[in-house]
Amino acid sequence: MRKIRLILQYDGTAYHGWQIQPEGDTVQGILEKSVAKICGEHTKVMGAGRTDAGVHALGQVAAFRTRSPLPSGTMQKALNAVLPPDIRVLNAAEVDDAFQPRNHALRKSYFYLIAHRSDKSAFLRRYVWTVGHPLDPELMNTAARRLIGLRDFSSFMGSGSGIRNRVREIFSLHITPFAGIDFMTVRLAGNFLRIRIEANGFLRHMVRNIVGTLVEIGRGRIGADSIEEILAARDRRFAGPTAPPNGLFLERVSY
Amino acid sequence: MRKIRLILQYDGTAYHGWQIQPEGDTVQGILEKSVAKICGEHTKVMGAGRTDAGVHALGQVAAFRTRSPLPSGTMQKALNAVLPPDIRVLNAAEVDDAFQPRNHALRKSYFYLIAHRSDKSAFLRRYVWTVGHPLDPELMNTAARRLIGLRDFSSFMGSGSGIRNRVREIFSLHITPFAGIDFMTVRLAGNFLRIRIEANGFLRHMVRNIVGTLVEIGRGRIGADSIEEILAARDRRFAGPTAPPNGLFLERVSY
Repeated sequence: MRKIRLILQYDGTAYHGWQIQPEGDTVQGILEKSVAKICGEHTKVMGAGRTDAGVHALGQVAAFRTRSPLPSGTMQKALNAVLPPDIRVLNAAEVDDAFQPRNHALRKSYFYLIAHRSDKSAFLRRYVWTVGHPLDPELMNTAARRLIGLRDFSSFMGSGSGIRNRVREIFSLHITPFAGIDFMTVRLAGNFLRIRIEANGFLRHMVRNIVGTLVEIGRGRIGADSIEEILAARDRRFAGPTAPPNGLFLERVSY
Repeated sequence: MRKIRLILQYDGTAYHGWQIQPEGDTVQGILEKSVAKICGEHTKVMGAGRTDAGVHALGQVAAFRTRSPLPSGTMQKALNAVLPPDIRVLNAAEVDDAFQPRNHALRKSYFYLIAHRSDKSAFLRRYVWTVGHPLDPELMNTAARRLIGLRDFSSFMGSGSGIRNRVREIFSLHITPFAGIDFMTVRLAGNFLRIRIEANGFLRHMVRNIVGTLVEIGRGRIGADSIEEILAARDRRFAGPTAPPNGLFLERVSY
C-alpha cells in the first residue's frame, strides 16, 4: 500500500463542510468518490481540518492509502479531471505510511475577511463578512493579544463537540488591513480587515467564535479587557456570537 | 394604482434565472414574494431582460403596480430587508403607469469576463469563464465588427425560442483587456478579456452564443471572416458553442 498526501484548495460555498454527512455533498465525500474513480478502489480520505459548511480552504492537507501504481503527478491531473471545478488538487505526493494529516499537524492557520459597509453588495458575499458597523482594529488587537498562548478555550467552543481537552495554544492572532487574495486567474480585492490566527489546533467553531467576539469588541459592545473573564468562565455563553462561515479560509497546515 | 420602477443587482449563481419557473427559485419569483410581504398584495414584477440561470445583473430594471402608499425610498429599504443578500435594490422610484421595462428599453448592454489559464482556480469561478487556450483579441475584434448593425441573428439564437423576428441591431461589440469590477465593498480583479455588447435587444442565448463563437475565433478554430457566412446561414449549427452563463453580466438598460 502507498500513502498519498494531497494539498487542496476549495470553495466551500456548495458543500456541507469537509466531513462526510448522511445527506448533502461534502468535500471529503467528493474526494473519496473521485479517488475511487481514479484508483479503482474505495479508500478513506483523511483531512487535517474539518472545515464547516461554507468555509473555504487554500491549503487543506489530506491523505489516503491506495494500491494504485499511478505516479503522483498523474494522480493529481486525473483527480483534477474528475473533481468538480471548485475543488482543486494543488499537489499530490507519496509520503510515509505513518503520515496522519490531522494528528501530525503542528500548526494550522486560518484567516477571516471582513468588509465594513452599511449597504451590502449582492456579489462575492460568500468570501467576505460585510459588517454594517465601523470596527476599531486597535481594540480588536488589544483583545487578540490576550487570547495568545496556551489556554482553555471552552468559552469559544461550539456546542455539540464531545472533546474533553479544550486547551489549545494560539501562536499568533492579528487584525490587519488587507487588500486582497490572489486566486490564480482572479483576485478578490477590497478594503478588508483580515483576522489571521495560527494555533496548534482548533476546537469546533473556535475561529468563528473568536472572530464574532472580536467584532463585538471592535464595535465597542464588549470591552477588550473582558477576554480574561470570558476565558475564565469556560462557558460558551460568555463569548460573542459565531461569525458566519463565509469569510473564513483554512490557509495552511504545517508539520 | 402606482407603478414602481426598481434598479436591481443580483448574483445569479443561486437562481434558475430571472423568469418564474415551475420549480426552483428565480429572481422574479423571489421579488414577487418580497413585494407581497412589503405591499401586502400579490403583484406581477416585470423585468427588462430575462437573464439565464447563473447570469448576473448590475443594472436590471423591473417594475410593478401597487396600491401601497409607502414612499419609494422606504420601499427600497424594506425590500432590501426581506430580499436574500444576493439580490439588492439599488433604487426604487415611482414612474408613469405606462412604463414597461421590457418593451420600452431602447438599448441593453451586457459584458462577459474571460480569463486565460491552463490550470483553473477553485474560487470565483461563478463570475468568470476560464478558457484553457490563449485567445487573440485582434481576431475577435475583427469578427466582432462584422456582427455590428441591423442583422438577422437566427444563427445565434438558442433553440426553444418561439420568436419569429430575429432581426436585432448591435450598436457596439468590443473585446478589451479588463482589470476588474467593483462590487461596492469588494473588487473582482484579474487579467480578463471583457466582451462588451450593446444592442436594441437580444434573442435567447444570443450573447452567450456570440461569446462562444468569438472564443472559437480567438483560438483560431473558426476564421474571423466566417461571420458573414454564419449570419447568412440563419442556422444555429453554423455558429460556435454557447458560452457558460457564469461570466455574463447584464450591465445596463437604457430608455
